[in-house]
Amino acid sequence: MLFRVALVALLSTAATVSNGFMPRNPSSVARGGSSFNMSTEEKTDDNKVEGKKAEDAPPVNLGWDSHSAVDTIPDSLVREGDGPDGNYPMRSKFEKMCREAQFKITKAIEEIDGEAVFREDAWTRDNGGGGMSRVMSGGKVFEKAGVNLSVVYGSMPQEALQAATERGVDRAKGMAPGERVPFFACGLSSVMHPKNPHCPTMHFNYRYFETDGGVWWFGGGTDITPSYVNEDDLKHFHGTYKEVCDKHDPGYYKEFKEWADRYFVIQHRNETRGLGGIFFDDQNNKDPEQHFNFSQECVNSVVKAYGPIIEKHKDDPFTQKEKEWQLMRRGRYVEFNLVYDRGTVFGLKTGGRIESILMSLPETARWEYNVIPEEGSPEAEFIDACKNPREWV
Amino acid sequence: MLFRVALVALLSTAATVSNGFMPRNPSSVARGGSSFNMSTEEKTDDNKVEGKKAEDAPPVNLGWDSHSAVDTIPDSLVREGDGPDGNYPMRSKFEKMCREAQFKITKAIEEIDGEAVFREDAWTRDNGGGGMSRVMSGGKVFEKAGVNLSVVYGSMPQEALQAATERGVDRAKGMAPGERVPFFACGLSSVMHPKNPHCPTMHFNYRYFETDGGVWWFGGGTDITPSYVNEDDLKHFHGTYKEVCDKHDPGYYKEFKEWADRYFVIQHRNETRGLGGIFFDDQNNKDPEQHFNFSQECVNSVVKAYGPIIEKHKDDPFTQKEKEWQLMRRGRYVEFNLVYDRGTVFGLKTGGRIESILMSLPETARWEYNVIPEEGSPEAEFIDACKNPREWV
Repeated sequence: MLFRVALVALLSTAATVSNGFMPRNPSSVARGGSSFNMSTEEKTDDNKVEGKKAEDAPPVNLGWDSHSAVDTIPDSLVREGDGPDGNYPMRSKFEKMCREAQFKITKAIEEIDGEAVFREDAWTRDNGGGGMSRVMSGGKVFEKAGVNLSVVYGSMPQEALQAATERGVDRAKGMAPGERVPFFACGLSSVMHPKNPHCPTMHFNYRYFETDGGVWWFGGGTDITPSYVNEDDLKHFHGTYKEVCDKHDPGYYKEFKEWADRYFVIQHRNETRGLGGIFFDDQNNKDPEQHFNFSQECVNSVVKAYGPIIEKHKDDPFTQKEKEWQLMRRGRYVEFNLVYDRGTVFGLKTGGRIESILMSLPETARWEYNVIPEEGSPEAEFIDACKNPREWV
Repeated sequence: MLFRVALVALLSTAATVSNGFMPRNPSSVARGGSSFNMSTEEKTDDNKVEGKKAEDAPPVNLGWDSHSAVDTIPDSLVREGDGPDGNYPMRSKFEKMCREAQFKITKAIEEIDGEAVFREDAWTRDNGGGGMSRVMSGGKVFEKAGVNLSVVYGSMPQEALQAATERGVDRAKGMAPGERVPFFACGLSSVMHPKNPHCPTMHFNYRYFETDGGVWWFGGGTDITPSYVNEDDLKHFHGTYKEVCDKHDPGYYKEFKEWADRYFVIQHRNETRGLGGIFFDDQNNKDPEQHFNFSQECVNSVVKAYGPIIEKHKDDPFTQKEKEWQLMRRGRYVEFNLVYDRGTVFGLKTGGRIESILMSLPETARWEYNVIPEEGSPEAEFIDACKNPREWV
């Protein structure tokens, strides 16, 4: 069960392309070396709570808890020799793309907010990689907003790697049976929670994975979680991503929109977390540059897709009832992220940087007992859209 | 992973003793009969969200989603013939004990609150059993408080049953290999969230399980989750339960206090949810009447252990900072319940009555980014007590 979530996992926190995606110099590839083969066994000193049982320990530990705070983030978090002129140029290419996007998006959000600024925390990891959180709290428009960059060097059992794929990628290719698979992951992920209940929450994540066996894939998505249905907003948001998708592949929007509707489901409530967007994983059937270009255009379309909706509604009048409804929907957001989101659950169970992972949670959430919106109300309309995903464009 | 949580599961929602705990009339025992063998396969119509994948479906379904609201709860939720004069008298004995305790505890809490009353929702299930939630919202003293009675007739695969035990109880005894094991469970569970940050949250759950193969066990516990360390309060709370434990077994308090410290751990933060209490499961090594008497005295000591602490602090002055700290600790409560609590996670994934299961969540919870209490502050003191469980009596 946990294995299934293993890779998509890096969703929540997790750049590169080798030319052709196989190491130029295979002899330089480390496999299961001690510096980044951080298995559970090697990390038992984490289990400080007395009486904690062995079976509660994480089955896979990426060594994310090896992070050390740094005052200044290095120019690149990929290991020397990986890129851009090393064996794995896509690694640094993707990282660069993420870092530029992190800067541009946070700048745009600061401009929309008009008051608060993003606070930066950077860290490196002993075994290579690291990350940078940029988090805004208590803004004029945004209650809480964060954009996290993460670069991870880890290793995982082959079953974990295999189980994580939904599309038959042979992720353990090139590895001996039973050998742990060293991998690289880089990603940019973000959640923005505005104050006004007529301003939707937005989440995106774009990531690149590569094993030391030369297997690679791209994943990502952007989705929106309003508290009310506003068809114009949804047409704009979905329309922006449909346009991006259509430029790269005529099948993408339909496929990735449906994937989002399937992924972002709060199963115990039989409703989606929000009103969708796009979601994809395991993308490796084209030239890596094509996948990279698509990811880049997606991440660079976040502000275009989301910004105008916030600008439009940030000063909308609202009632106490609408605010409480928004907080209850934030409760649902928490339920999805803590119970179902593969990246969050995996990150929590494998020693990720907790504050970066849980940056996705809203500042405030609310649970009232057995609230059933009145038939015909805007709240009931919203629930209907969550139970029956619609076409917006 | 999910299997492990299977039974303790009924924690969140779930009296009997057959004489000697084996059916008086074995021929009357239904095993895997269609009426209560609600397997996943039989309930695929739950998967209404388009595109929901088979592998996301719950591995075990207790049929809890078969509940139908009823205006008046029947005198007993155990099946006719089970007890008190039937084959399984402990079933109705435990149910009766829970129902009396539910009434007494909610009455006492209403008196402490002085304003709000509990709202009652009762339901029955097609295959026998049912439950009753009593929930208070928006009180003068309590933000949200609930006490749930639940009676469940279900069946589970043997591996699920076996995996759920921590103590080697052969739960599948008497069943043919591969056969699903029909079981009965009854329990009373509760969470109370007061408003004042100097008033702790309290949780308890007491439950009785029995398989149709004649295997039975008791489980339960009461624990407290303040936002600040108040030694007198903790001495009173733990002292009350130590006294109860000591009357029944000189080893109980130490064993069950440590079990609580081990169980209520937010593993990703390496801290406990609160400041402990007692927790036990798989109790079947004494005469069932002795276990029953212990459970009964525990549940009947809830008000004595908790009430005076609330009376003492309900009007304490507090600052905005203290209130926000309480709400952040409530965020931790949500993290524990949604990520680790076996009963909650299992209930959510197997079609339980969601509103009853999530009654345990606070009305409001808060997540601020990277809050680290100042050294020497009362907040830091509290975190220390969560990271290093202490002896209070």
